Amino acid sequence: MSKEKKQTRISEIGEFGLIDRLTQHIQLKNKSTLKGVGDDAAVFDYGDKCVVFSTDLLTEGVHFNLMYVPLKHLGYKSVIVNLSDIFAMNARPKQITVSLAISSKFSVEAVEELYSGIHLACENYGVDLVGGDTTGSLTGLTISISALGEARQEALVYRNGAKPGDLLCVSGDLGGAYMGLQLLERENEVFKVNPNEQPKLEGYDYILGRQLKPEARGDVVNVFEKLKIKPTSMIDISDGLSSEILHLCKNSKVGCNLFEEKMPMDLQTKKMAEELNINPLVAALNGGEDYELLFTISPDDAEKLKNDPDFTVIGEITEEAEGANLMTTGGSKIELQAQGWEHGKME
Amino acid sequence: MSKEKKQTRISEIGEFGLIDRLTQHIQLKNKSTLKGVGDDAAVFDYGDKCVVFSTDLLTEGVHFNLMYVPLKHLGYKSVIVNLSDIFAMNARPKQITVSLAISSKFSVEAVEELYSGIHLACENYGVDLVGGDTTGSLTGLTISISALGEARQEALVYRNGAKPGDLLCVSGDLGGAYMGLQLLERENEVFKVNPNEQPKLEGYDYILGRQLKPEARGDVVNVFEKLKIKPTSMIDISDGLSSEILHLCKNSKVGCNLFEEKMPMDLQTKKMAEELNINPLVAALNGGEDYELLFTISPDDAEKLKNDPDFTVIGEITEEAEGANLMTTGGSKIELQAQGWEHGKME
Repeated sequence: MSKEKKQTRISEIGEFGLIDRLTQHIQLKNKSTLKGVGDDAAVFDYGDKCVVFSTDLLTEGVHFNLMYVPLKHLGYKSVIVNLSDIFAMNARPKQITVSLAISSKFSVEAVEELYSGIHLACENYGVDLVGGDTTGSLTGLTISISALGEARQEALVYRNGAKPGDLLCVSGDLGGAYMGLQLLERENEVFKVNPNEQPKLEGYDYILGRQLKPEARGDVVNVFEKLKIKPTSMIDISDGLSSEILHLCKNSKVGCNLFEEKMPMDLQTKKMAEELNINPLVAALNGGEDYELLFTISPDDAEKLKNDPDFTVIGEITEEAEGANLMTTGGSKIELQAQGWEHGKME
Repeated sequence: MSKEKKQTRISEIGEFGLIDRLTQHIQLKNKSTLKGVGDDAAVFDYGDKCVVFSTDLLTEGVHFNLMYVPLKHLGYKSVIVNLSDIFAMNARPKQITVSLAISSKFSVEAVEELYSGIHLACENYGVDLVGGDTTGSLTGLTISISALGEARQEALVYRNGAKPGDLLCVSGDLGGAYMGLQLLERENEVFKVNPNEQPKLEGYDYILGRQLKPEARGDVVNVFEKLKIKPTSMIDISDGLSSEILHLCKNSKVGCNLFEEKMPMDLQTKKMAEELNINPLVAALNGGEDYELLFTISPDDAEKLKNDPDFTVIGEITEEAEGANLMTTGGSKIELQAQGWEHGKME
């Protein structure tokens, strides 16, 4: 590169801006490529079945802190993150590959510990570990996991099918993983000052579990199949609810009203937020890592989910011109903004 | 992990040993998984077509040195490395995903430069870039590329089909990429001492190209199809000829005799080796990164390739008990040993 060329810092355009710049001129050439950049996973057409593919890259110090994340949990979660992307396409994961770049500070036993979590996730979700790449790194640990899944073409749900009048729904509850992280970081700070101090984690097992051992919502995909519901659009919540809602709205060319009062939150999430002086709404909107499914359904399907406490209608889809808004308990209307994510995804 | 547990350094068992330990208990559960860990790529059965999948992880300082590798070339080569794995299955690549972990030292323009090489490789090989993940890293650059390919099930070639009496063949020539690397490293050392010194690279364009801009041998797969040849086994040469031959022999449960006098080497490779006082045979056997295809064919097929200078018969497959040996020009028989690779692959 010539030294005279203008150099733009990545932070100036953000990671989503970077991805847009890198992928804007892509033209798909192969007829088996049904969906490229721009959804939770890429989709390939192989006759009867479609193959769905997702990949994630996790780096030490950015995505995880080995001071308080046990390696087995890290392995488990690294798989879950990818399976969640496959479920978000209304597909089922079948295979994963695991690539590791490992610095010399890691022992064989440490890598085995990491793998024990990876194997456990494969076991729990009926997925085959089929390959990868293991290599050295000068510093720290990098984990790259890819997942392949299957779905019939007509079952696939993309980000772009939401229509005005659809209901915006979410599985499970929100903000727990974020509050679990805040708790772990607080106790880690205490530990750094006084290594003999025992961490105070009692009473917060739920939010710690949400952070350290999340699950991917394959059960939701099964419910959809059983109840013959096909969401009009779907995405998994990895970067935070606000960010994901904006993805759905942008891809579907719609607006939405999100109701603060409907936000499903666990008691521990609220309690921890109070203890740490954090607005629990911020945890729910921008915390991320909940790995719940955010989806839209036609009002005709709402009846079928009504009595299942695992699902909450949190908003309604509107015309694009109305924008994406949070309707607060106090009656205000605030434009939704993406915040809280540190990294951008291409699929 | 308990502090009392024995900690084994990865170097004690080697990277292939580590992979064996991590993957020894894997049992495949899904019927679409035809081939898991243990070949150039994993294979999935989707009716008419099989999907072939390969992934590689490249880290700065281990796999590439940005002091002398231009980013565009790095992007190109990162794709090639994966396409080569797909071709080694006798399949054709169709899609890739690209994940990057980037530290803040990289500008948007630098990442675009890297991507220009990635896009060019996609263009040249008719492959679609369909997704990935872009994220931060505390230090340096990590590139994770995955490739998906297609083949009819009966066309797939694995590592395990070589039979005694088969001929061991290689495309192109060997050792060039390694000698190109030695040249670049020599000039980099000179540059570090005297930054005003111009690098002396004249007359070595071929080996520099082999190192900086390798190609994947899709043309060889086309020749096989045209001549109706199905190799009995195949692997791509990424870690070095010796290492790859040992993989074929181990997986096929055969031995082999490799003839030193048959080794195809370019004049520049030999010249550079002489200049640097390196035995050119070492470059060919252990250098790696040639991305040529190493394969075995039945003697009946040998006639079809005889007049094509792009292929060389370098050895013969023997019974397993005879071992894998190098037959030197001087008439000695030396047991082949894997050397020269720094990293292990799981596929």
